Amino acid sequence: MRIAVDVMGGDYAPGEIITGAIQAGKQFPDTELILVGREDLIKKDFSQLPSNIRMHHASEVMGMDESVESLRKKKDSSIWVATKLVKDKEADAVVSAGSTAAQMASALLLLKRIEGIDRPAISAIYPTLQGGKVILDVGANANAEAKQLVQFALMGKTYAEVILKMQNPRIALLSNGSEEGKGNETVVAAHQLLKNTQLNFIGNIEGRDIPAGTYDVAVCDGFVGNVLLKVSEGLGSALFALMKKEFEKDLRGKLGAALLLPGLKNIKKMMDYAETGGAPLLGVKGVSIICHGSSKARAIENAIRVARDCVGGRFIEQMEVSIGQEGGS
Amino acid sequence: MRIAVDVMGGDYAPGEIITGAIQAGKQFPDTELILVGREDLIKKDFSQLPSNIRMHHASEVMGMDESVESLRKKKDSSIWVATKLVKDKEADAVVSAGSTAAQMASALLLLKRIEGIDRPAISAIYPTLQGGKVILDVGANANAEAKQLVQFALMGKTYAEVILKMQNPRIALLSNGSEEGKGNETVVAAHQLLKNTQLNFIGNIEGRDIPAGTYDVAVCDGFVGNVLLKVSEGLGSALFALMKKEFEKDLRGKLGAALLLPGLKNIKKMMDYAETGGAPLLGVKGVSIICHGSSKARAIENAIRVARDCVGGRFIEQMEVSIGQEGGS
Repeated sequence: MRIAVDVMGGDYAPGEIITGAIQAGKQFPDTELILVGREDLIKKDFSQLPSNIRMHHASEVMGMDESVESLRKKKDSSIWVATKLVKDKEADAVVSAGSTAAQMASALLLLKRIEGIDRPAISAIYPTLQGGKVILDVGANANAEAKQLVQFALMGKTYAEVILKMQNPRIALLSNGSEEGKGNETVVAAHQLLKNTQLNFIGNIEGRDIPAGTYDVAVCDGFVGNVLLKVSEGLGSALFALMKKEFEKDLRGKLGAALLLPGLKNIKKMMDYAETGGAPLLGVKGVSIICHGSSKARAIENAIRVARDCVGGRFIEQMEVSIGQEGGS
Repeated sequence: MRIAVDVMGGDYAPGEIITGAIQAGKQFPDTELILVGREDLIKKDFSQLPSNIRMHHASEVMGMDESVESLRKKKDSSIWVATKLVKDKEADAVVSAGSTAAQMASALLLLKRIEGIDRPAISAIYPTLQGGKVILDVGANANAEAKQLVQFALMGKTYAEVILKMQNPRIALLSNGSEEGKGNETVVAAHQLLKNTQLNFIGNIEGRDIPAGTYDVAVCDGFVGNVLLKVSEGLGSALFALMKKEFEKDLRGKLGAALLLPGLKNIKKMMDYAETGGAPLLGVKGVSIICHGSSKARAIENAIRVARDCVGGRFIEQMEVSIGQEGGS
């Protein structure tokens, strides 16, 4: 198996990305890793690479906030070159922590959409009281129609089954009320469509169910998904900041905090995206793993594991089967 | 000042509602409180009422999940009767922890909309690292057009100024990215409209800014607002549940938790809606204070305080002035 790693993308590129790839290379000696990026930068800090890791030069970088249009002029950017390796069957998957917009555009243009899917979606694993659950879309589609929400459900189901090994995953529709008629126009329409699929559709869930984890896959549009993920991240950080402040007020607090440190660390770890690593871009004909922009080595290592699982589990083929079964939905 | 309290609405009605009213009655001896509900139930547990508290009989109750349609047949329901007291100038404000839909419908039908407002909105005070901030709409409008988001901004501004005593409040638009072009179609259009108002519009904010508190009023549609509030509530509960579990694992955890109890209680208090009490329904010509369904006495007491502030601060008149100034926006 060969996995292309975009070493130029992300807040800690290229150092942490390369370190993560080297760690993954040790962990998976059967896997060949291709570091895509500027050879001079890679060589500068990593003069010796393990035998299952090699470089593939790409002279340009897509900035985090660069418009997707400029991708057309940057055909030697690391994300484009890495994705092209997959298209040309020189790699089985691509992993990147760079601009999600650029990664998605590269995948759409080079790998193409799976038939029956209007637009790709991005999923996230949300840490809940009942383990990690899938939420999608979390950012690819700020506007989504009802039938696209159904497509998200189908893609989420396949992801949950093939990669997360969930059996007959419970699919829920995120709404502002649990009753069938609740929601905005799109969600109300999507509810009716979902009822008529073969999916294990458990109906609407509310925001408070998201951290409770009473579902396996939660479906929403990319605007709502983005807000919900970022509010959760922000609230987690704010609570830990508040606790720190409270606990540092006096000796009693300091002593208590020291005693609780292992427990608090467990919770932080549970909420840490680095443990998940990355999630496949859903709906394109090739494995493209999206990592958080602030990924460090451990996140990249885990993302490479996810890429391996996707390739090994024949994720794309399974996705095509799932989408095909629901046909014209 | 006379405030009508719907004692039949809410999870803990009528006991906690009446207790809250009695507490408020003691705190504000200049205020006359009118307990609206079944006299037999009120008398059963509260045989003697203080001199500034009296009863006003209403034989029916609107259930929490009852459809708004049934309100037309329940003209003797406590929320309808209490709101009618405001319409008939027999009360200056109404406070309820009952069905928000019924409270809003009663206000719309009896008190009517403020000119220039298409639909009323519900606001919430969100506890942030920089104090409580206003978010609206949080549930009245699952579908909202761009011009309605502007109306929410205007109403939120008046609320922040008159009730929360904020000066020149910073108005932000919640989106999936801070850049001007980010958002779904409605949000992108609203951004352009907001730029052309007299408001102190600081542009888009993202989900993670919500708990950080880098704004004074955050505007979103009622679907997104509802999801964001409920995710926050759920995540707060989940984190405290996780901590409890971690801390009860061993003696070290138990001891640490005992030491940190005061600090943790401070944080819980900060996140407690009971401290806020309630928020006025925005956009109707009369003061109608919406309380959380699970309000206990302390929340009701605080909600009555909010009602007093609204009446005393000439909230409705100020709102009409704000809306009038922006004219045809």
